[in-house]
Amino acid sequence: MQTQIRSKSDKRQTMSRMLAAAHQEFCNKGLAGGRIDEIARNAGVTKQLIFHYYGSKEGLFVAVLDETSDRLMTGWVDFDVEQLTPTQALRALLNHIFDQYRNDPLLARLAQEGVRYHDYNQTPRNRFLELAPALVDKVGRIVQRGIECRSFKPDTQPRLLLATAALIATGWFTNAYSTSALVGLDTASEEGMETWRKHCADFILASIVATHGEEPRSPRAD
Amino acid sequence: MQTQIRSKSDKRQTMSRMLAAAHQEFCNKGLAGGRIDEIARNAGVTKQLIFHYYGSKEGLFVAVLDETSDRLMTGWVDFDVEQLTPTQALRALLNHIFDQYRNDPLLARLAQEGVRYHDYNQTPRNRFLELAPALVDKVGRIVQRGIECRSFKPDTQPRLLLATAALIATGWFTNAYSTSALVGLDTASEEGMETWRKHCADFILASIVATHGEEPRSPRAD
Repeated sequence: MQTQIRSKSDKRQTMSRMLAAAHQEFCNKGLAGGRIDEIARNAGVTKQLIFHYYGSKEGLFVAVLDETSDRLMTGWVDFDVEQLTPTQALRALLNHIFDQYRNDPLLARLAQEGVRYHDYNQTPRNRFLELAPALVDKVGRIVQRGIECRSFKPDTQPRLLLATAALIATGWFTNAYSTSALVGLDTASEEGMETWRKHCADFILASIVATHGEEPRSPRAD
Repeated sequence: MQTQIRSKSDKRQTMSRMLAAAHQEFCNKGLAGGRIDEIARNAGVTKQLIFHYYGSKEGLFVAVLDETSDRLMTGWVDFDVEQLTPTQALRALLNHIFDQYRNDPLLARLAQEGVRYHDYNQTPRNRFLELAPALVDKVGRIVQRGIECRSFKPDTQPRLLLATAALIATGWFTNAYSTSALVGLDTASEEGMETWRKHCADFILASIVATHGEEPRSPRAD
C-alpha cells in the first residue's frame, strides 16, 4: 500500500518534470524545432520513458497545450470578482488575463504554436474546448449583472465580448511585431505594457457600458 | 531597345510567377514545410533561377511577405472613404479589411507564418514597416474628422484604434480555432462570417462614438 502510494506520487512527479521540460523546449523552439533528447535530458529521464507516457513528440506537445490551457483557464474561471461591480469585475478579469501573458514571456509563443497546430490537426477533445464553456459562463454572469444594474448595454453578448477581449488582451504578445509597429511602442517596454493594459480594458468597457447607466458602488447595494 | 524592353518585361513576368508559386506553397505548408523544388516546378523555372533572384528560401519567403503586405496595405490606404461620414468611413474600412481575409482563405496562414518569422528573425526594412505610417495617417484623418464633427470621442487615439481593429478583424481568421470555440460558431460558415464582420465594426464604433454626438449626413454639410 505504502509502496503503491509512493509509486503513484513518483509517477506524478516524473510526468510533471517531463511536462515542465517540454513546456520550456516547445516555447523556445516550437513543435518542429523542439527535441525529445533535450527534453529527456532536462527532465532527467530516458527518451523511452517519454514515448511510453506520451506516445510521440506530438502527443507530448498536446499534453503541454492541455496543461497550459488548464492552468490559464482555471485561473480565469476561479478569479474572484464576485465582490466587485460588473465594470470593476470585467476590468480586473481583463487585467488578470493580460498579466498572465506579461508574467510568462514564453506563453505567447506556445499560444502561436497551438494555433498553428490546431489549424493543421484535429484534436476533438482537449482542455481548451472542455474549459471554454466555464469561461463563457463566468463572463456571462458578469455581463448579466451589468445588464441588470443597467451598467452595460442590454444587448451585450458575452461570447462575442469574450472572444474580442481575448484577441485584444493577448494580441499584444502574440502579434507583437505588427502591433508594435502600428502603436509605435515597444511591446516589451514598461510604457508599452502599461499603455496596452489600460487601453484594452478602457476600449472594451467603453464599447459595452450603457450610455446613461449609473453603476451602484456595489452590486449588493441594489 | 526593343529587346531590352521585352527582356525587362519577361523578367518581371518570371519573378511574378515565382512569387505567385511561392505564395501558394508557403501558405499551404509554411516556411519550414515549403519546398523550393515545388515552387520552381509550379513557376516553370529552375531552382537555380530562384536562388539567383532571392538568394535563399528565406529570401523568397520575405519577398512573399513583402508583396502581400504591399498589396493589402496599399489596398487599405487607397480605399476611398472621403465621401463618407467618419462613422461610415471607419465601418467601410473595417469591412474592407475583413473581406480581404475572407476572400483569400490562405492569407491567415501566411500572416501567422509572418508573425512567427518576425519573432525569430530581424528584418529591419520591409514593406509592412514602410507602409504602416500611411495606414496610421489614413485612420488618423478619419478620426480627426470624427472628432471635429463630434461624432467620435475627443480622446480617440488613432494608433491604438488601428492596432485594436486589426487584431479583432483579422483574429477571426488567424485565431480561428479559439475564437470559434468561444463564440460558438464555425469561423468558415456564412453565419459565422456575417456575425463577426458586423460585430467587429459595431463593437469598435460603439467604443469611440461620442455619447451625445450627432453625426451630420455628410462631412461636407458642416
